[in-house]
Amino acid sequence: MARDPGELRTLVERYLEELTFAPELGGLEQAVRYSLESGGKRVRPVLTLAVGDAVGAQPERCLPAAAAVELVHTFSLVHDDLPALDDDDERRGRPSAHVAFGEAAALLAGDALLAEAFRLALSYPSPAVARELAGATLGMIGGQHRDVVGETTDLPTLHRLKTGCLFGAAVGVALWAAEVPEREHAPWRAFGDELGLLFQIVDDLLDGDGYALLHGAERARELADEAAGRARDRLETVPGDSSVLAELVSSLSARTS
Amino acid sequence: MARDPGELRTLVERYLEELTFAPELGGLEQAVRYSLESGGKRVRPVLTLAVGDAVGAQPERCLPAAAAVELVHTFSLVHDDLPALDDDDERRGRPSAHVAFGEAAALLAGDALLAEAFRLALSYPSPAVARELAGATLGMIGGQHRDVVGETTDLPTLHRLKTGCLFGAAVGVALWAAEVPEREHAPWRAFGDELGLLFQIVDDLLDGDGYALLHGAERARELADEAAGRARDRLETVPGDSSVLAELVSSLSARTS
Repeated sequence: MARDPGELRTLVERYLEELTFAPELGGLEQAVRYSLESGGKRVRPVLTLAVGDAVGAQPERCLPAAAAVELVHTFSLVHDDLPALDDDDERRGRPSAHVAFGEAAALLAGDALLAEAFRLALSYPSPAVARELAGATLGMIGGQHRDVVGETTDLPTLHRLKTGCLFGAAVGVALWAAEVPEREHAPWRAFGDELGLLFQIVDDLLDGDGYALLHGAERARELADEAAGRARDRLETVPGDSSVLAELVSSLSARTS
Repeated sequence: MARDPGELRTLVERYLEELTFAPELGGLEQAVRYSLESGGKRVRPVLTLAVGDAVGAQPERCLPAAAAVELVHTFSLVHDDLPALDDDDERRGRPSAHVAFGEAAALLAGDALLAEAFRLALSYPSPAVARELAGATLGMIGGQHRDVVGETTDLPTLHRLKTGCLFGAAVGVALWAAEVPEREHAPWRAFGDELGLLFQIVDDLLDGDGYALLHGAERARELADEAAGRARDRLETVPGDSSVLAELVSSLSARTS
């Protein structure tokens, strides 16, 4: 198959746009859609589809899982932006959800995004996709708590929780959705770990914090390149056509926003 | 089997006390446990075990599902108490989670309770328990949103969403956990609907709002008794020994707190 990341992103955007939500949400759906249509790069769901592509699964098979991961990511952004946490009034150049809809609706919209994520993950016959998502969500929440309350945590652990868990799940849900036998998961998961690390270091370089602050920009760039190198090495150990994933490594390594 | 509701409640309490949470939660676990150990009546998980008992399932089989329902209930209380929503400083005579641990930790503890609820629900081989939970959670969130923003909604609809959905799920997860064939679910679900309505009307009578405000206390009491009567009638249509459930109807009907 070997589509390109741009094509996969288009598939994700279309799927998210056409997503139907529980009718019981009523007027809350507006805040949910607003948060979800905020124009992010969709790195995680594209990763899910790209892993699916590499193991020979049609995108249709992995789209609900990919969307579930994006909904969990969006849930975390909506809650993190709230005044009680990071108190960010803007998200990707638009008013954040609590500014646009009020704190009550933003809080509940975040809750709804998490529950809808599970609903999507539970559309598979096996509970494995949803289990993967639950584990990653708990790690992410734990990471955010450590960060917010200033619990002493080394940077790699904090990043593994805050970013790595959901990157890992983006890979993991593709494997489960594509019914890749568990004994074949290890190299994929190792690849996901490196990609999550790469993403985070580049993020820190762009923001001038985290790894960039701890090691200096030059050393952080080296660390990013090393993670990208290890990610590419991992791809050579997995069967199938991983050219889309290799493109993804390059674009994450070179991203400027 | 036919245990009594008190015995089932003890099983629930012990199970919740011994529950282990994702180690990644770190220091957040304290706020999660605090919220969960707040001494509620455990009506919903006892209902799950009682339905399980009536259909011949060992309590052990239904306990993870019962606990999952209680965690979803607790998640909703923790978030509802937040200043952005109901702004309640007390919950069952103790400081609410955001007073005890701060708003950030309470928000994240609520998120963690929801994710842990799914982890428990996903401990079954089939995704049906977790699907039931996801649907009910979305209804409950939609109900809370309607209530908070004052969206025009008739009282029965609002109550069905805010209370009925999770009562329904308490029954539904027992049926799935006990592997009762879906074609036999209808009378159980009708029973759950009546029990949820009974619970809510009595709640309104105790609080002097909702049904009590709309119809007056006397008429609300009649409506509660009628719901209790229909719940008992439903129990006569289901196979098995539903004596524990009949006790539950009586105790919910007569409760004074």
